[in-house]
Amino acid sequence: MQNRSAQTHQRILDAALAVFAQSGYEASSVADICAAAGVSKGAFFHHFPTKQAIFLELLEVWLAALDASMETARGETNTVPQAIMQMTGLMSSVSQSASNYLPVFLEFWTQASHDPAVWQAVIAPYHRYQAYFAGLIQEGVAEGSLKPVNPDLSARTIVGLAVGLLLQGVLDPGATDWAQETQHSMQMLIDSFMEVES
Amino acid sequence: MQNRSAQTHQRILDAALAVFAQSGYEASSVADICAAAGVSKGAFFHHFPTKQAIFLELLEVWLAALDASMETARGETNTVPQAIMQMTGLMSSVSQSASNYLPVFLEFWTQASHDPAVWQAVIAPYHRYQAYFAGLIQEGVAEGSLKPVNPDLSARTIVGLAVGLLLQGVLDPGATDWAQETQHSMQMLIDSFMEVES
Repeated sequence: MQNRSAQTHQRILDAALAVFAQSGYEASSVADICAAAGVSKGAFFHHFPTKQAIFLELLEVWLAALDASMETARGETNTVPQAIMQMTGLMSSVSQSASNYLPVFLEFWTQASHDPAVWQAVIAPYHRYQAYFAGLIQEGVAEGSLKPVNPDLSARTIVGLAVGLLLQGVLDPGATDWAQETQHSMQMLIDSFMEVES
Repeated sequence: MQNRSAQTHQRILDAALAVFAQSGYEASSVADICAAAGVSKGAFFHHFPTKQAIFLELLEVWLAALDASMETARGETNTVPQAIMQMTGLMSSVSQSASNYLPVFLEFWTQASHDPAVWQAVIAPYHRYQAYFAGLIQEGVAEGSLKPVNPDLSARTIVGLAVGLLLQGVLDPGATDWAQETQHSMQMLIDSFMEVES
């Protein structure tokens, strides 16, 4: 029975993701999600107290997958600049697979700004990435691959560029090959952080 | 009478901006805007066919002010790198004054992606800024202040960084002094485009 309950849980998550991507977060109702998942409202509320709880779990699952890919990227590379470029490559593929869902995330994010409790849940991973890149940059400075740049400032610049390019790619997918351009853009930025090889 | 009509038009715009900032775009009704402006629905529809028309006019007014400031910044500076940094300074002050409204713009933008006609109206200024910065970078290459970088790629990188930092500042205003950090971040990027002075 545990197994069947876990399957229902997953089916509701999958259905919610599809419904959100189709109609947007606000316009999607619990009834829509139940219909798409083929479950009763009773079953839904057994698994999730609110529509918001589903969204937060979807976000968590998505970020956990991203974290795992980033760890792999770090493990496969020797220097910090290489690691950041490997992670940038990931970002492009993540954004392509997530392009249906990013508008939903954005919608949720702007709505979350009206609710302090949700806000904390949404801003926490963002602060985590900030801190992660600041730590990575400190490593790069220590290993001698990066100039002694300000870690926090540099991390916010990297995250800022990543977020900005991701957003442009989602909002205007036909403008260019965003995967390739993101690589080039990030390389330009990272070059400016790097010690010139002698 | 023309004057009074123009005043009413402006009063509806001001009221709509306040109502959108307070409640979000989707949640605001024409009735809310009429109540805030102290006008009848008849008067409203005399000036604007839809709530969407108001939004698009607000966007146009905001962008026209930004364009004028950018032209002034260009006129006050000699080289392209100086001009871009002057414009970055503008962006910080624009974003501070607009921080109430940017979530509304974002909300509208994500919703617009479902409506091709609105989409064109919203994406056009974005393409315009892209083209503007590409032209500016070509000028910089021609005047010898910038390396022979790819103008389109560099323009998208500049716009990407600007949009990403603007978004971070709006979503997480307390994290840092965004105005100052935006200057530093953009300077790092522009430095990487610049010819090293001999």
